[in-house]
Amino acid sequence: MRVLILGGDGYLGWPTAMHLSARGHEVAVADNYLRRNLCQELQLEFLHDVPDLTKRADLWQSISGHKIAVHVGDLNDWDFVAEVFQKSSPQAIIHYAEQPAAPYSMLDRQAATLTLSNNLMVTANVIFAVREYCPDAHIVKLGTMGEYGTPNIDIEEGWLEVAHKGRQQKFLYPRQASSLYHTTKIMDTDLLWFYVRTWGLRVTDLMQGPVYGMFTDESSQDDRLLPFFNYDEIFGTVLNRFVVQAVAGYPLTVYGKGGQTRGYLNIKDTLNCVRLAVENPADPGELRIFNQFTETFSVNDLAEKVREAGKQVQLNVQIEHIENPRTEAEEHYYNPVHTGLLDLGLTPHYLSEEVLLDMIEFVMRHKSSIQTDQMLRNVKWN
Amino acid sequence: MRVLILGGDGYLGWPTAMHLSARGHEVAVADNYLRRNLCQELQLEFLHDVPDLTKRADLWQSISGHKIAVHVGDLNDWDFVAEVFQKSSPQAIIHYAEQPAAPYSMLDRQAATLTLSNNLMVTANVIFAVREYCPDAHIVKLGTMGEYGTPNIDIEEGWLEVAHKGRQQKFLYPRQASSLYHTTKIMDTDLLWFYVRTWGLRVTDLMQGPVYGMFTDESSQDDRLLPFFNYDEIFGTVLNRFVVQAVAGYPLTVYGKGGQTRGYLNIKDTLNCVRLAVENPADPGELRIFNQFTETFSVNDLAEKVREAGKQVQLNVQIEHIENPRTEAEEHYYNPVHTGLLDLGLTPHYLSEEVLLDMIEFVMRHKSSIQTDQMLRNVKWN
Repeated sequence: MRVLILGGDGYLGWPTAMHLSARGHEVAVADNYLRRNLCQELQLEFLHDVPDLTKRADLWQSISGHKIAVHVGDLNDWDFVAEVFQKSSPQAIIHYAEQPAAPYSMLDRQAATLTLSNNLMVTANVIFAVREYCPDAHIVKLGTMGEYGTPNIDIEEGWLEVAHKGRQQKFLYPRQASSLYHTTKIMDTDLLWFYVRTWGLRVTDLMQGPVYGMFTDESSQDDRLLPFFNYDEIFGTVLNRFVVQAVAGYPLTVYGKGGQTRGYLNIKDTLNCVRLAVENPADPGELRIFNQFTETFSVNDLAEKVREAGKQVQLNVQIEHIENPRTEAEEHYYNPVHTGLLDLGLTPHYLSEEVLLDMIEFVMRHKSSIQTDQMLRNVKWN
Repeated sequence: MRVLILGGDGYLGWPTAMHLSARGHEVAVADNYLRRNLCQELQLEFLHDVPDLTKRADLWQSISGHKIAVHVGDLNDWDFVAEVFQKSSPQAIIHYAEQPAAPYSMLDRQAATLTLSNNLMVTANVIFAVREYCPDAHIVKLGTMGEYGTPNIDIEEGWLEVAHKGRQQKFLYPRQASSLYHTTKIMDTDLLWFYVRTWGLRVTDLMQGPVYGMFTDESSQDDRLLPFFNYDEIFGTVLNRFVVQAVAGYPLTVYGKGGQTRGYLNIKDTLNCVRLAVENPADPGELRIFNQFTETFSVNDLAEKVREAGKQVQLNVQIEHIENPRTEAEEHYYNPVHTGLLDLGLTPHYLSEEVLLDMIEFVMRHKSSIQTDQMLRNVKWN
């Protein structure tokens, strides 16, 4: 299948590109290096150097024999979008091209405006480009479990059947997020759902939990193919951060009580979920929603797991509860459904001690690069 | 109270400015004449000439003795926003500054992008400006009943208590609109609700139905103080359009079966609703939502009322059912609650034959200006 990956330079974008390429799909990627540029502006270093897209695509071709077409440009710019869609003529579009960090979106007015404008305008351009150039193509959109927030009822898979005063209505499951970034994903959903109903688009919305890890069948073949790895408070996801803190001898920084519970998944499962969605497209006029995670943990659970794994390699891991910079519930009900992707054939990779030890071992090799002053950046919600 | 009206040149903005000014509030208005410019680009004429804001403010001062401060500029531009907020130091902000037409938002990609970008970025700038310059000020936001769509259950006033698998959760009432314009209002709600929770803003969201009429206590004093009046398919609201069609001897154009039912209100009631909201502010951290309309009618009901009123002045009004250019239900359940504003003290002006005859009489005076080729503009949803 011809697959266009928007945000193809990203933590998930690049591994997805290789994963689909290795399985015979014809892959094109587009990116404007927004994430790299924001990290540079904020003086946030990746754990290891990551070659640019062109170099990685060349390397991947030399290793695998598969070509990945690279388009560097800004998907806010319609001329670029039109060119990419015309050249790649996609049957499926995987839309990762968003500013992906909750703390970044809460940094200041400029960062908030960038997040809002970038995320919504790119989503709108994707919709308009599909309408214009490939109306039968399938949009696979990365949403987030964070859109649901932490309601006091079970989180269903995208939809909620409501009985009210003797009548019934099926609604999009009501969404209420706890950062501007997550709120832009809700707004993306509003936009996609409107055009699905109006234009009959095919859309799959993957409500993903926080992802951890960096090793995939493809990235393991050469360190230069690994995704970039943030361990700072702004762009680093929680388990990745904890592993780096453990190796650096820095206390694991748990926000508040640490009872915040979320659904997590291994990066390998992200790739399989996205591939399953691409290979089993939504119908025309269907907004198909999957909750994309494999296990739920509290932040305290994750910290404990990292401490236990650390013991195996003589790391004396400390855990520190610090003042919560976010506005969020620290203890709450959390019971989200996640059967859709399992039904499509997902075989989860659970968070074992072995998985953690692989991550720790990798980070130890890069220990000299860790800059502990990057970890906390004092971004406060309020 | 110091009140800043964003979109103060508009069909509702200008009458609101005079209404509050007449009642002793200190009013400032801001506008970039977007609506006028879009009408010019699309060659859509107002029924009668409308002086610019500066001229109207001068005229209003000469008639009433009250000054309205005028700021002309683009609220997408942060420097302008900052200047307006610093100069006017508002205690309440009435936010009308959006591209307000569903058909315009469905015209083409450029119009859709303008609607999305303008409406969301202005709302974001309002939020950031309140946070920075007047955190205790009350934002009165014009939403729309169209955000709810036409669900098969009763439409409550902004919120829905859901019982699910033995547990309870109160949600924002799930929204599902039938145009991009209405969808941007949903996205505004998402944005405001997030910052209300996070920053403790005071917000009232007025979920307004279609408005009709042009006469208010203030606008009736001089024809040059009347709001602009669109009768075209793009910017004209349905009852205003029908009255002009009736006077022009043009069949009333009912889309499809005409069973589309909505909540309507007289422009006088819009002003009273907005004033009641301003004079009774929401609490800090409260998103207060009112459903703002006084009566529900189907499109067929409205067409019949115009035909009946027309008979009184010897107009032989024809009604024509044309192919529906929109994607919407033409027959549906519709039972929205609207008690909040009545509880605050609203005394509705219902749609009587006298009200219709006043409108017809006014339009007859301007009959020679009516351009019947403007009425249908062939904007199709699909």
